[in-house]
Parts: sequence; C-alpha cells; structure tokens
Amino acid sequence: MKSDSVAMVTLPSNSHKQETVCIFGTGDFGRSLGLRLLQSGYDVVYGSRDPKNSLLLPMGSKVMSHADAAHEAQVIFLAVHREHYGFLSSMASELGGKVLVDISNNLKRGMYRESNAEFLSTLVPGATVVKAFNTISAWALQSGGLDANRQVLVCGDRADAKQLVVDIAHGLGFTVLDKGSLKAAAELEDLPLQLFPLWRLPLCIAMGLTAFIFFYALTRTVIYERVTNGKDIAFRIMISLANKAFPVVALVMLALCYLPGALAGFLQLYNGTKYRRFPDWLDRWMLCRKQLGLTALAFAFLHVIYTLVIPIRYYVRYRINVFTISLIKNNVSYEFDNTAAWRHDSYYSMGILGFGLFVLLGITSLPSVSNSLNWREFRFVQSKLGYITLLLCTLHTFLYGWDKFLKPSSYNWGTPPVYMLSLVVPCVVLILKLILITPCMDHKVTRIRQGWERQNKTLAKTSQPLMA
Amino acid sequence: MKSDSVAMVTLPSNSHKQETVCIFGTGDFGRSLGLRLLQSGYDVVYGSRDPKNSLLLPMGSKVMSHADAAHEAQVIFLAVHREHYGFLSSMASELGGKVLVDISNNLKRGMYRESNAEFLSTLVPGATVVKAFNTISAWALQSGGLDANRQVLVCGDRADAKQLVVDIAHGLGFTVLDKGSLKAAAELEDLPLQLFPLWRLPLCIAMGLTAFIFFYALTRTVIYERVTNGKDIAFRIMISLANKAFPVVALVMLALCYLPGALAGFLQLYNGTKYRRFPDWLDRWMLCRKQLGLTALAFAFLHVIYTLVIPIRYYVRYRINVFTISLIKNNVSYEFDNTAAWRHDSYYSMGILGFGLFVLLGITSLPSVSNSLNWREFRFVQSKLGYITLLLCTLHTFLYGWDKFLKPSSYNWGTPPVYMLSLVVPCVVLILKLILITPCMDHKVTRIRQGWERQNKTLAKTSQPLMA
Amino acid sequence: MKSDSVAMVTLPSNSHKQETVCIFGTGDFGRSLGLRLLQSGYDVVYGSRDPKNSLLLPMGSKVMSHADAAHEAQVIFLAVHREHYGFLSSMASELGGKVLVDISNNLKRGMYRESNAEFLSTLVPGATVVKAFNTISAWALQSGGLDANRQVLVCGDRADAKQLVVDIAHGLGFTVLDKGSLKAAAELEDLPLQLFPLWRLPLCIAMGLTAFIFFYALTRTVIYERVTNGKDIAFRIMISLANKAFPVVALVMLALCYLPGALAGFLQLYNGTKYRRFPDWLDRWMLCRKQLGLTALAFAFLHVIYTLVIPIRYYVRYRINVFTISLIKNNVSYEFDNTAAWRHDSYYSMGILGFGLFVLLGITSLPSVSNSLNWREFRFVQSKLGYITLLLCTLHTFLYGWDKFLKPSSYNWGTPPVYMLSLVVPCVVLILKLILITPCMDHKVTRIRQGWERQNKTLAKTSQPLMA
Repeated sequence: MKSDSVAMVTLPSNSHKQETVCIFGTGDFGRSLGLRLLQSGYDVVYGSRDPKNSLLLPMGSKVMSHADAAHEAQVIFLAVHREHYGFLSSMASELGGKVLVDISNNLKRGMYRESNAEFLSTLVPGATVVKAFNTISAWALQSGGLDANRQVLVCGDRADAKQLVVDIAHGLGFTVLDKGSLKAAAELEDLPLQLFPLWRLPLCIAMGLTAFIFFYALTRTVIYERVTNGKDIAFRIMISLANKAFPVVALVMLALCYLPGALAGFLQLYNGTKYRRFPDWLDRWMLCRKQLGLTALAFAFLHVIYTLVIPIRYYVRYRINVFTISLIKNNVSYEFDNTAAWRHDSYYSMGILGFGLFVLLGITSLPSVSNSLNWREFRFVQSKLGYITLLLCTLHTFLYGWDKFLKPSSYNWGTPPVYMLSLVVPCVVLILKLILITPCMDHKVTRIRQGWERQNKTLAKTSQPLMA
Repeated sequence: MKSDSVAMVTLPSNSHKQETVCIFGTGDFGRSLGLRLLQSGYDVVYGSRDPKNSLLLPMGSKVMSHADAAHEAQVIFLAVHREHYGFLSSMASELGGKVLVDISNNLKRGMYRESNAEFLSTLVPGATVVKAFNTISAWALQSGGLDANRQVLVCGDRADAKQLVVDIAHGLGFTVLDKGSLKAAAELEDLPLQLFPLWRLPLCIAMGLTAFIFFYALTRTVIYERVTNGKDIAFRIMISLANKAFPVVALVMLALCYLPGALAGFLQLYNGTKYRRFPDWLDRWMLCRKQLGLTALAFAFLHVIYTLVIPIRYYVRYRINVFTISLIKNNVSYEFDNTAAWRHDSYYSMGILGFGLFVLLGITSLPSVSNSLNWREFRFVQSKLGYITLLLCTLHTFLYGWDKFLKPSSYNWGTPPVYMLSLVVPCVVLILKLILITPCMDHKVTRIRQGWERQNKTLAKTSQPLMA
Repeated sequence: MKSDSVAMVTLPSNSHKQETVCIFGTGDFGRSLGLRLLQSGYDVVYGSRDPKNSLLLPMGSKVMSHADAAHEAQVIFLAVHREHYGFLSSMASELGGKVLVDISNNLKRGMYRESNAEFLSTLVPGATVVKAFNTISAWALQSGGLDANRQVLVCGDRADAKQLVVDIAHGLGFTVLDKGSLKAAAELEDLPLQLFPLWRLPLCIAMGLTAFIFFYALTRTVIYERVTNGKDIAFRIMISLANKAFPVVALVMLALCYLPGALAGFLQLYNGTKYRRFPDWLDRWMLCRKQLGLTALAFAFLHVIYTLVIPIRYYVRYRINVFTISLIKNNVSYEFDNTAAWRHDSYYSMGILGFGLFVLLGITSLPSVSNSLNWREFRFVQSKLGYITLLLCTLHTFLYGWDKFLKPSSYNWGTPPVYMLSLVVPCVVLILKLILITPCMDHKVTRIRQGWERQNKTLAKTSQPLMA
C-alpha cells in the first residue's frame, strides 16, 4: 500500500461546487433552500413571477423571470404548490432537458389521484422529474440538520438526473436514500402527512381496553355499592378505579406484544418453513409490537404513580385513622399476620422489579440506543428480558389476587374481579412460550429459522414473490 | 432501465485511497487522525520539528521534517496550536498551492481578534486554507465515530480545496456540513468552547424564580410562625418549602414555554403577514422553548418525588399520630368529608396525568426520537399535547387551592399563598390560546401561516433580507 | 464565487446506477439486499445452484447459474454460509479479477481459526475480497435504514475494490466506515456475535456486591433475630433487605465510576506525563465507566421505588398502628423531636436531589444526547455534575446513619451496619478528588493534560507505539 513516489492529486477541474442551482418560488422553503445552497458554495438563481418585488431573498442570490432563471441551471427546484404548476406547461422549450426537482407536499392525503411529481412529469414531458426533499422541513434546512432529520428521500425514473440531485443533497450535508422510480413519489408525498400510523392500532386497543375495564369496575364497585348498600363511593373514580384500569391495560398490552411472536413460532412449525408469508393480520400485528410495548409501559408508569400516591390520599388516611380508633375503642389487639406480610412485600417486589425491567426495555427501544446494539443484543433484550418482565408482572398480579378467587365475596353480581380478567392473555402467552422453549420444540423452531424446510413440494406453489 | 448487455465497470484508475495526507504536529489529535487515515487506506506522513524523537506515532506512517513532509502531499492537516503557527510563514515556497486544513481550537473565547484559520490564511497567502475537523475530538476519531458526533463542519473560500477535505472526511466515515466561506471559521472555532448557550436563559429564569418563591414562602411560613407564634418550624425548609417552590417553577416555566408561540400568533395577526421578522427578544425566546420545557420537566420531576416522600417523613407521621390520639382523647368521631375525598383524588389525578404527558413531551424532544417524527407528528405532540399538559397542570393547581383563596387565614401578612402566584402566567397563556383557536381567529392565523398577506404596501419597506 | 456565465453541467455519462450487481445465494439476506439494490436503481443478477427453483426473488431481478451470473457483474455479493464456500474454488476463471464481497457471519465465536473473508481470499486467489455489510441485518436493509443502524463497516486489501463497495453502500443510503485491511475482517465478524462486552464487568461487580450485601444483611438481621430472640422476620427479605442492598450497590458503583479517573490523575502526576500508557486494568476500567454509572443508576432507581413503597406495606402500617395504640394505652405523650425532623428531611432531600442529578447524567449518556454536546459540555456534565451527584448521595448516606455509628446496639454480633460499608469507596474517591482540585495539584495536572512533560528521558524507552 505504501508507495515512495509522491501521489500528487490535482484539484478537480469540474467541481460541482461552481454549479448554479435554480429555484422557482420565493416562499419559506425556497428561501431556506437557497440560503443553504449559497452557504455550501452553490450559485443560486431564483425564478419569480415578479422579480422586482421579490423581497427577503438571501444575499448573494439572483432573481429573474422564470424563463431567464431556467436558462442558468441544469437543476431546477420547484418550491411552488401543485395548484400553481400550470405556468410550467407553457415553458416547455426552456425546461426541455432540465432536471425538475419536485419538493411539494399536499395539505391532505388523497387530494389528487396521481402524485404531484407524476403530474409534473406529464405536464412537462421534455424535462426529467425527480422527487426529493419533501420530507425535509424549511427549519431543518436552516438549522443545518444538526438536530433534525438528516435523510433526504429521492425517487425518479432516470438515474443520471437522480444522481445530480443526490450530489446536491450530499453537498448540503444530508444522507440520501434512493426509493426507486417515480412511482414511489406517492409514497414519499404521503410521509409528511402521516400522523403516527403505527401507533393507531395500539392506541385504539389501549383506549378500548381502558374504557371496558373502567366501566366494568365502575359497575362492580361504585354502582354495586350504591344499589346494594345505598352508599355513595363515586369519589373512587378518580384514583381507585383508574388504578384498576391502568395495570390491567398495561399487563394485557405487554402480553399482546409477545403473543404474535409466539403465534408466528407455532405457524412456522405448522408450515414447516420460514419462507411462507404470515397472514396479513399477523404481519401488521408484528409490525406494531414496539408501539404496543411502549403504550403498555406508559400505562404501567401511570399505575406506579397512582399506587405510590395512595398513602397521601385523604380517603386512605381517613380509613387508617378510623381503623386505629375502632381497634382501641373495641379493645381488640392487632395480630401480626406473617402470611400477609410475605404476600404484600412479595407482590410489591415483583411489581417493582417488573417495572424496572420494563423501563429498561423502553430505554433500549429508543432509536439511538437500539441502533447501538447489534442484532444479538437487541434480541436478547427484547425477547429474553421481555419475557422475564411479562413473567414478573404476571406473578405480581397473581400474588396481588392471592386467594381472592376462592372467596365468593369477590364476585359482586357474579362477576370476577378485574385482576382475574387481566391474567387471561398473559397466561396464554406464557404457556405458548413454555411449549416453544421445550427442548424438542426449540430444536425444530431453531432449525426452521436457520432456513431448514420440511420437504413439502405443494407449498412452493402457494408462496408469493416478495415484491408485488 | 434493464439492459441485457453487460454493464462492465472498470476499477477507477485514480482512486483517492492511494492519496498521501500530511499532518504537521505529533500530539494527541495528530496521532489519532493519522491512525484513522491509515486504517482508511491513506498514506500518512508526519511533519515534525524533531523527526528522530517523534515517538508513539501510528505504525505505517512516516515522519520527516516539515519541509519534506509538505512535499509529499496536497493536503496538510495542521495539528498545531495557533501560538506555534510562526514557523509556517518561513515555508512559503513549500506550502504554495497546498491545501492547509486548520483544525485548531483555542482555550478560551475571544482570545484573538480574527479566527485561527483567517490568521493562517494571512500567514501563508500562497496556500488555500480550509477550516475543518475542529469540532471532532481525538476520542471520536479513535472510536470510529460509532458513539460520537459524526458530522464534520467545513468552511473555506475555495470550493475545490474544500472538496478535497470533504472527500477525506467521507473516507473516514463522517458526514460533512459545508458552512460556507472562511468567514465562518470564527463561528466554527467558537462551537467547541460553548457551554450550553441555549440553556443559560432557562436556567437563569429557573434559579431566579426558585429563589424568589423560596424566600417568599420562607417569609410567609417559617418567619411568620416565629414572629406571630414564636414557634420554630425551620425544619420545613428541607422538604415542605422546596416542594412549594418546585411545582411553582415547573408550572410557570411550562407556561413560559408556550407563551411566545401565542404572542407570535397575535403578532402575525397584527402584522397581517408572516413575512415580517419577530422582535429579537421574541426570536431568542422561541429558540429556547425546548430548554424551557425540559427545565420545567426537571422541576416537575423533583416535585413528584418530594410529594411521594411525604408519608415517610418523621414530621408527617408525628402529626398523623398526634391527630389520631387527640381524636381518641377528646372522643371526637372523625366524619368522612366526601368533597374533600373528591377534591384530593381529583387534584392528584390531574397532576399524575399532567406529569405523564409531560414526561412524554420530554421523551419526544430527545434528538433521536424527534428525528424519527415528521413535521406534522412533531407539531401534534409539542403543540396539542403540550397545551393539554399545561391545562392539566393548571387544573391540578386550581384543585389544590380549591376555596383557600376565599379564606382570610390564607393571607399571612396580607400576602397570597404561593400557589396563587403560580397561576398567573398559565392562565394568561391558556386565555390567549383560547382566543387564537376560536374559529374566526384560527381561520385568519392559518391563512397567514400558509403565506397569505394583508395588502399593506408600507410593510415591504421595513422588512429586512434574510441574511445580514 | 458568482459567475455570470452559465455553469452548465452535463449529465454524467458513466453513472454507477446502471451497474449490475451479482448476488450468490437466494436466502433472506440475498433477497433483502437484491430488493434494496433494485429500488436504488441497480440491476441485480442472482447466481443460484438451481436457478429454475429459486422462488420468492424480488421482481425485476434475474436468476441464472453461478457462472453465468458472475459474468454479468464486477461486484459479487456472497450471501452464502462459509460451509458452502467450497464450490467457489472451482470457479477460479469466472471469478478472476472480480470483487467478492463477503457478508457472512458465523453462529458462534472462535469457530474457525481465520476469518471467513480471509478463508475466501485463499480459496479464490484471483479475486479481490472485501468484507462488508455483515453488521447490517436483513431487516435493516428492508426498512430503509431509517430506524436501524445505518453504518456499513468495510475492510479489504485493495483500495479500488473497497471503493466500488463503498459506492454501492452510499447508493443504498448507508454511511461507510473503512476499517482497513482484510486483517480487520476477524474483528468485523466478531461484532454481530458480541453480547454486551462492556457490560460484563459492571454487571458482575453489581451482582457480586448485591449478593454479598444481601447475605451480610441477612445474617445481621433475620438470622441474628432468629438466633438471639427466636423471632421470625424472614418476610423482610422481600423489601427491607432488598432496599438495604440496592442503595449500597448504587453508591459503591457510582464511586467506582469516578475512582479510575482520580487514579489516572495521580498516575499522571507520578509519571510526570500523559504520554505514558495506563496499566491495562486501569484502561479497561476507564472504558466501562459509562456502564458502571448506568448500572448504578438502575440500582438507585430500584432503591427509590422500594423506598416510596414503604408506607403502603402491610408491615409498616401494622407497626405504626401498634405504636399509636401503645402510646394511648400507656398514656405516653409523643414529644416532637426537632433534630429528628431536620435529619429525616435533610437526608430525604439530599437523596432526591442526588437521584435527580443522577437521572440527568443518565439522560446525557444516551447516544443521541451525548452526540449533541460538545466536548466541553460533555465533560462538564459527566465530571462536575457527576461529582456533585456522588457528594449528595454520600451526604444522604451519612445523614441516614447520623449517630448510629456511636451506638453499640448497631453492631449486631460486632458487625457494622450495611450503610457504613457503603461509605468506604465514596469517601476515598471524594478525598482523592479533593486533593486533585487543590490549586497546586490542579495546576500540575492541567499542565500535564495540555501536553507538558517532566524532563525524564528514561521514560521514552519504556513507551510503546500506539498501534501494535
């Protein structure tokens, strides 16, 4: 590798930095883009309807009519709303052979049948359209991308045109991800309009479950008490009932986060291969496991604080006081119940350890933390530690219930207490997992996951190609 | 796109990887840089005052006199302190036409009138100076940038020279952000010397507020009690008083974090355009909103733990005990107050939910999380959820106070309780926001933010260009 | 910089995007890689043992025999396990002059003496082997790298071959870190098989300490009580004993996290230079300081929740009740102890503030947060704030113990209470630090860290080069 001769590198004669870039439109994004281009050493020319009244443009840029500006550069950024694309069709001669970069976004999803970029492409057939930069905000351009998203998504039909845009993006300090042909433009234009798509299902489940458990517990306690004893204990809604609903939702959703993995294992065993697609519902379910888990963590967090706040509640202080007074008045001695001490401390301990592990799982799912883990580490945390968390939280609930399930008095109006309902899904998941990790099953699943297939030729015909 | 002919690519004949890079200086940074360059396939030559006694240099590098080393490469990194730049002026002939990369930092801000890079440029006028790598630590170079900052900031007057340095930075696995001409060097040299510039204002506000509330409460409780009743309750300073100051600071700072946004809305309505600059103080205020919010969160966190610790305090246990005993001795029955139960549980509940949302806001402002959100999602969280947080926390405070403001006994020495003071700013912000989201106002603001301007030609003359 | 002439850029004639890339192997990784390559505009050709039965390949790719596929491209990715490399040795003529990209990983560490890439290189001497992409998962390729690790590690002996692979990685939206020659392949192949290497030592220390303190406290309390008084207080294991062990582990490990820095300072003073290597054990210790600190934080977190849970424990409620009843029955008045109130509130306050700062330290050690800090800010937080945290936590422990160390009754069986043991290491660290920050010592250390060396020529002979 070492050469004693001098490796002299001549300065590149055709550096892209002297390139002139044209921007149509002098709005927020156009100005921010121009400023950043100028800072990075490009010459910037604005095309404007009214060049004389274009104010607030960055110093060092030039502004002229659309036609004149188009002459100056090979690459033209369109910082113009789709509704104003009309004037471009009359500029066919000026735009011929140019690269038009469509950076537009729409206000709502599904406003138009075709993507803005494809529409532009039909409007100016002589030019090459590249979709890019639409996921970058004007603010990200201004702040130098240090704190903001640094990845520019690009798509387009001609590789050479895309390359010009990629070079500019690199010159501005962004990384680039090529998303393929201009057909991907619709997908790119949807991205900035999305509002937590993967969170919808988990949040719906969480809200549905919370509402169900809340009204179930309301009926069993507040309404039951009112009907049978005529007592008003509605004040319990604010904390006692909330603190019945939150832990149930947290436990069930944590279990729901591990259920699809267990189901997938059984499905692979049944199929005898990993090369068969999972049904769509299972795929969707598996995609939002992280969101399910984090929602569960949020509810667990609320459960913890609602629990810790118990001793400073007026009602609790009142009850303890009344209890103490009654003991004295009736001269009853308060016998220490060793089992109760064990049981209480155990279920608190399980709960705390489970919550601690749960927080750890949450931290490792932060993007910057999970990026610093390799695949083996990530699986260890999310799978092994995840199941231990589920086990601890399930034990916590079992110990909380203790022998309540044997006492008829727990079944107001014949309905089981809330905590029993919450144990169904976690127990199913833990049992399925227990089956999967028995040595013989584990051996089969491992072989399948390493690529082994049961000889079963009929299968091949039903499998689908990866890309539709 | 698919061609059936074979697209044969020949290996590039002039790959930059055989390039030799020269480093003047054999200190920490020079050694780390050389090691990294060698690992990435460059040849490295060190220039040293005393080549024979240069130890600890990475294996595979060569070391020679400054003049000899300069001959070997086109790009020379100066890993030398500014104070030792003197010898370079005598090397004019050897350095002519070379690219000198100034990576230096100073020990303090404002030590010199001109930046080190500009000084270097006047010292060796025949060479081209590029400022780069000064924000990268020797440690980041060694650790391969996996855990550390990966962005190299570059500035310089000649695009071709900058490109050479950019290529090297890319070759070492860094991303590059071009900051423009060599005038930007002063700014780049300031970056590593900054100590939380955006945190200063929020922390000053927080400390000022804490001190004020603390002494205000001290006067109203500890000193008041001593003067009027002669009782010493100074032990309350440690927890009770701290837990009066923290929630107030948290609430006021959370409100201060949303106040500038509301003011900006009204200012845009008044101006009838969004293209007019905000006054400087408002701009600065808006820039540190994130820091204001996170400081508020820290105080809210302390408030939560200080509150949860209440029932294990000696003083609280003592008081409850004394209260129970007095009830028994005086044979008073303890009547259950349903309103008190509702009120207590409600304000705990509001507080917990508010804190939960607040933590969520804090998590989404982590760089790696906010980077994974698009603009719409980020605004939804920080604006919508932010106002709900503020509303919950304000309600929490109102319910805490309840009817205390009607009781003259609350006004020791005529001063209102601390919690009342804390409600002023949040209420102002909530009322301003309420006005802004009335349909007619909301419609106007939305139109302005989408670029609409009230016809008002005088305005144009007062507006300033974006870049000074 | 501004030129009035039109800077016309011609579209690059030989864009890399028309390049064909060949992939041997049609498994998971091969399919994901092919899909991503196709999306980014490359042509993809698969080489397969059985081209007619290769299903599930991405649309738009071609599949043919290994020999035919090799003809089509300059770069060949080997998505094949090492065990199946055999067939390549028979393809010497087809593979001559090609670039073979080894992306393989092994199932376990140390399975083979030489790395897979080096083995491949001896198997097909006519081709150039580049190791790359082995740290990228198939899932990261599919998800576009938005959420996953985006850095491709590359090594190889020929710079031109590496450059081809680097260009492809850039084209797929990854950043690249060049790790040097093919000798680095062994290291790269180890990376995906590591399981938290830097966490091992801290976790071992934590578990050892926890076990020791737990059994120590078990003996002193539960067993002591059983032996001397015949009382069974084993239920205390779950919370009381755990909450004795956790804070001790947290405090000791926090101190262990700052001890090596202090030792290093003294060592540098003793050596009179910073250019002498630290002993290996100190180097290893310093490398895992972050992990030591985060483990300590986890234990501190558990300590906080275990403490906050105290007032809802059955046992605690029982004891308070019994105490109140005994006061009434014996007609003893409960005197308020002002010192106890001060002491309790002070140690809670110290603990809470210490924990708050500790959480702040934890947050700043998240990769995305520490990346956004400059070196000065990072040192300020981790060193200054770190020592304040240690000081607060040590004070918390001292105040907790108060005058217990004077009372003989604290020394069951002559053993000191647990909290005393925990104070040894923190006190040593704080004293060492105190010595180091005395003006005269601080001056010396600062000079040494800025590069000053005591004249001591014998030292040079014992120093080692940076790279072995």
